[in-house]
Amino acid sequence: MDLNNLGIVKRTIVRADAEAARRLARFGVATVHEAMGRVGLMQPYLRPVYAGARCCGTAVTVLLHPGDNWMLHVAAEQIRDGDVVVAACSSECGDGFFGDLLATSFRAQGCLGLIIDGGVRDVRTLSEMAFPVFSRAISAKGTVKAALGSVNIPVVCAGAQVNPGDVVLADEDGVVVVPAGIAGAVADAAQAREDSEVAKRDRLAAGELGLDMYRMREALAKAGLKYLD
Amino acid sequence: MDLNNLGIVKRTIVRADAEAARRLARFGVATVHEAMGRVGLMQPYLRPVYAGARCCGTAVTVLLHPGDNWMLHVAAEQIRDGDVVVAACSSECGDGFFGDLLATSFRAQGCLGLIIDGGVRDVRTLSEMAFPVFSRAISAKGTVKAALGSVNIPVVCAGAQVNPGDVVLADEDGVVVVPAGIAGAVADAAQAREDSEVAKRDRLAAGELGLDMYRMREALAKAGLKYLD
Amino acid sequence: MDLNNLGIVKRTIVRADAEAARRLARFGVATVHEAMGRVGLMQPYLRPVYAGARCCGTAVTVLLHPGDNWMLHVAAEQIRDGDVVVAACSSECGDGFFGDLLATSFRAQGCLGLIIDGGVRDVRTLSEMAFPVFSRAISAKGTVKAALGSVNIPVVCAGAQVNPGDVVLADEDGVVVVPAGIAGAVADAAQAREDSEVAKRDRLAAGELGLDMYRMREALAKAGLKYLD
Amino acid sequence: MDLNNLGIVKRTIVRADAEAARRLARFGVATVHEAMGRVGLMQPYLRPVYAGARCCGTAVTVLLHPGDNWMLHVAAEQIRDGDVVVAACSSECGDGFFGDLLATSFRAQGCLGLIIDGGVRDVRTLSEMAFPVFSRAISAKGTVKAALGSVNIPVVCAGAQVNPGDVVLADEDGVVVVPAGIAGAVADAAQAREDSEVAKRDRLAAGELGLDMYRMREALAKAGLKYLD
Amino acid sequence: MDLNNLGIVKRTIVRADAEAARRLARFGVATVHEAMGRVGLMQPYLRPVYAGARCCGTAVTVLLHPGDNWMLHVAAEQIRDGDVVVAACSSECGDGFFGDLLATSFRAQGCLGLIIDGGVRDVRTLSEMAFPVFSRAISAKGTVKAALGSVNIPVVCAGAQVNPGDVVLADEDGVVVVPAGIAGAVADAAQAREDSEVAKRDRLAAGELGLDMYRMREALAKAGLKYLD
Amino acid sequence: MDLNNLGIVKRTIVRADAEAARRLARFGVATVHEAMGRVGLMQPYLRPVYAGARCCGTAVTVLLHPGDNWMLHVAAEQIRDGDVVVAACSSECGDGFFGDLLATSFRAQGCLGLIIDGGVRDVRTLSEMAFPVFSRAISAKGTVKAALGSVNIPVVCAGAQVNPGDVVLADEDGVVVVPAGIAGAVADAAQAREDSEVAKRDRLAAGELGLDMYRMREALAKAGLKYLD
Repeated sequence: MDLNNLGIVKRTIVRADAEAARRLARFGVATVHEAMGRVGLMQPYLRPVYAGARCCGTAVTVLLHPGDNWMLHVAAEQIRDGDVVVAACSSECGDGFFGDLLATSFRAQGCLGLIIDGGVRDVRTLSEMAFPVFSRAISAKGTVKAALGSVNIPVVCAGAQVNPGDVVLADEDGVVVVPAGIAGAVADAAQAREDSEVAKRDRLAAGELGLDMYRMREALAKAGLKYLD
Repeated sequence: MDLNNLGIVKRTIVRADAEAARRLARFGVATVHEAMGRVGLMQPYLRPVYAGARCCGTAVTVLLHPGDNWMLHVAAEQIRDGDVVVAACSSECGDGFFGDLLATSFRAQGCLGLIIDGGVRDVRTLSEMAFPVFSRAISAKGTVKAALGSVNIPVVCAGAQVNPGDVVLADEDGVVVVPAGIAGAVADAAQAREDSEVAKRDRLAAGELGLDMYRMREALAKAGLKYLD
Repeated sequence: MDLNNLGIVKRTIVRADAEAARRLARFGVATVHEAMGRVGLMQPYLRPVYAGARCCGTAVTVLLHPGDNWMLHVAAEQIRDGDVVVAACSSECGDGFFGDLLATSFRAQGCLGLIIDGGVRDVRTLSEMAFPVFSRAISAKGTVKAALGSVNIPVVCAGAQVNPGDVVLADEDGVVVVPAGIAGAVADAAQAREDSEVAKRDRLAAGELGLDMYRMREALAKAGLKYLD
Repeated sequence: MDLNNLGIVKRTIVRADAEAARRLARFGVATVHEAMGRVGLMQPYLRPVYAGARCCGTAVTVLLHPGDNWMLHVAAEQIRDGDVVVAACSSECGDGFFGDLLATSFRAQGCLGLIIDGGVRDVRTLSEMAFPVFSRAISAKGTVKAALGSVNIPVVCAGAQVNPGDVVLADEDGVVVVPAGIAGAVADAAQAREDSEVAKRDRLAAGELGLDMYRMREALAKAGLKYLD
Repeated sequence: MDLNNLGIVKRTIVRADAEAARRLARFGVATVHEAMGRVGLMQPYLRPVYAGARCCGTAVTVLLHPGDNWMLHVAAEQIRDGDVVVAACSSECGDGFFGDLLATSFRAQGCLGLIIDGGVRDVRTLSEMAFPVFSRAISAKGTVKAALGSVNIPVVCAGAQVNPGDVVLADEDGVVVVPAGIAGAVADAAQAREDSEVAKRDRLAAGELGLDMYRMREALAKAGLKYLD
Repeated sequence: MDLNNLGIVKRTIVRADAEAARRLARFGVATVHEAMGRVGLMQPYLRPVYAGARCCGTAVTVLLHPGDNWMLHVAAEQIRDGDVVVAACSSECGDGFFGDLLATSFRAQGCLGLIIDGGVRDVRTLSEMAFPVFSRAISAKGTVKAALGSVNIPVVCAGAQVNPGDVVLADEDGVVVVPAGIAGAVADAAQAREDSEVAKRDRLAAGELGLDMYRMREALAKAGLKYLD
């Protein structure tokens, strides 16, 4: 029995249905997170490196070690059109694991973006390239290429479990992971949620109160809310 | 005697003079903070959710619980034209308590902005709506509606005491609270301070040193400053 | 023997060669940091106060105390054309040590920017002036003028040792310090590094993998990397 | 009208009833916090500087500035038997504002402990003296005596509003503020709460489940909880 | 298909072999973490609430919501002798989810300890009871019982994936998760590692250098290490 | 010219006078920090790994990389009786760089303690060995041996510049660096300071106020302090 899942590259992964990923790409992270029952959200310290960054694709996962980006080069070869690379780190590290050269390479392989629980650099160029990156830090500090991690194993990235092939969606509000097997159903639920919000928005804009629209007054009174003058 | 100030909505509050609030809106937070003797500043972790956000209005206060935004719906009904909602939380929480639907509702009631010691979501839409929000975090994570807090009680928000009706001013530099009773006097003092800075800025731009303009040389020498070559 | 290096202003400092500083200004921080052997980087919590801020110049150093900006006024007199002020603090403090008046004065003396291990305010005006500032915080909180620090002594700023006259370069990726004595050599090395990257970028953009371009496959196999299907 | 509440020492304050303070001293912070409706808790970053520290007394409040402990000397004169000094700071600072000499002086004036939203030093001696201190940091860094704050004004300390004379209780679980006017009532409520917990503890220790003792099963089922095998 | 894994209690879980768990209990967390290939470690912000706390057992997992401990009561019923409760939270929260009453109840059900990515209170009593708790915070702030989470689903706790029935080991160095299926093999590997360290410790204590014992000199020279006088 | 100071081991360093180091060992960090003019203090996040840890010795410096402890093995050979190892890291990392085996080795070489701007593990054993360690974190996570750093070069450790041979003193209050050349003079100043405090402590204990003993009343009045009843 092998105790160690380091030093492994899984070449064959089952990606979520491409059409489901495309449909999910049209929604916001908050909507998708609600639609799948409020699970799968990465921690909010992951932020876009430029305003307006946004991406959605199927996950190629990477496990890095602090200060070492060797596995990102290994991961590049596993990228297929429509993938997003999701890089976890075996412990907290804000070094610049990724910059414009890797972004150029990833894009050439069909990659739509990077989610990394670590730092990145060359953010001006990344912004000019419009290559979406969500990271925990920005740092000019480079990394070495010395320690084996793995590619396409299950990882925990910024607090969320990610399996290779899952759909990953990122925008201004954060990053959410949709398991491959439920991507289509989540897209359906997100659409339903969005449809229902249109009417609500109109009613609220017209001055109706949420207290009335959501029929909260009775529950509030029952809970003991008191109005004083 | 009632030990508990939870579960209370105060409907009648004394708002600061509207004209004083309008006058304060023309100044920067740093100027107003100086003008009132360097008190009333919220902690600097509150940041605008989009570049250029800015607001000034009279406070409707809310006390929330972590992961629960029920009271924001209750607060909506208490908003009057020119108000800013100030939401404190009973313990630190970065969840997304507020999003585009609540922003739509708050605006329809006359609200000019939100200051929240918590997280918000839908920031792209908030930015498109130009609805100013200052928060401690951005997070797609939604909240429940289960626990009573209060509306229009005195709260401590991001380290500053806020009473309902106080003027709250927020810009790129932070958020400052001006007690309702001194809003006019603070506006006067802010104007005086701003007037005095115009001439100073011209002199400094012309190359005069602050050492001379503020007559600091004697005090520095007395304190023991030594110049070496 | 004097145990105390507080209360000192060194008027004569040896600045790095101006031409070397000009050459360094053309490179990114990440490139220069690599070119000098990955040393001299400040900690990544220093961030530009507006998007696109960037500066490069010779250091006038300042040691401040928490909540006290007196020495920034003393430093203004020591600025020469092409300088960047580097302000350290004797303990962590995010107060607004610097604002638009000091920026006006610094610019009038020839200053190209400020690196401060503390907070600043008036960031809207700083942005309109296009005066580059890299700070650990933004805060409207003002400071007093009461305690002696020093000007043009060696300081540790955000984790990096800075001697007066060193070249300091700051951009979106961070802040790096180049010792005055090696500024020209580092510029040469940065140029060589940048030249070598052009060809690499083209090859990566054409789809060549880093695994092949950097000849990593043998080392990875030797380290034990296993490919699974 | 005076805009500025800095530079003020209030000599006459109304302290909470001494007997109520004595009674509160027998309870834990968690119990008292519950008893008063879950308000008045300081943020949990305040920690005792030695294991087992604990204090309860009437508040003498101080507003300090970062890096400046002058007002602690002013406060010493206002201490009466049974007081606890509560020191807030106008912005976040972890410097060592307080050490063994001030502890000696405070104790000589009758002080029972210190709550400080800042740092302290000489913690070995404080521990040997058994002088209870709850602080946000431990730091050997000293402070200056240059800027006026105030004594016995209302302050916000670690997120809680404190008025001079309030009862402040601190133990391993945190620090809670009991307004002077309700100290006796809160002590009554704390006693009632503690009495009710004895029986509960016995039942739980005997193996009864909280699900049954608190009759939660129906509410859980109604909320939709599903048991799977 | 069910999108939502909230509101579920799994009653039947496959616990790791009890003998394997007992064997693992004899090792330190660092040893076990090494023995299983440096995976499975929780983030180091989890700390014991009293000095010397230590526990090892099979995991009953809980997913909580911020400020809500309802599911801990539900979990109590699922505890069997030798279990450790592992509580994750859907977003970061330091409230006091757990105190002496729950500890009494958990112990009565056979629980050996608690790992919680949240806060706890009553730490003096927990210490007196010698009930081991590892938490991210200590806080007197209580929680409500309003929102459904789940029990015995896979969770991410402090950055580590935990499945119900896994072995969880916690000591001064941190918390590590050993998947149920490899618990015995990891215990073997930990024993082998510990055996090999005895001889090394003796040689190092006798003055032999690691450089020689681990034969590092050649690799260091090859990497380019230069000795200067 | 060599741009790179990595990969260097300096074998010959000038250690501070041993008698001066012995004398400094008798004082507290706060006293020494004051005695040398309030410079040289490391940041307060460095904490002892067990209560009562304390050390004083001459510095052997090490520059590590994140997740890599190779250079600690190299450093072991450079230790002489009375040294303290000071380990900086090229970027922030809390991994466990150091544990009981290295402690055994260091002690065998004559080392009196470790100051590390990183994490350590095996803290129970370190405590039992009474080997003093001051670190930024405790973590069971191990490190690799792959990247060259340097030994006995000047480093910035936790914000303080340290040259090999400097005296480093650490206790409950923090860590302070005394340059080798002034160690004796600082010991003299520390003694003088300690002598002067004895009398002050007695006067304060007898009830004399600092306001009077330090003659602060006039300065306070001049600054504008107002006493109100």
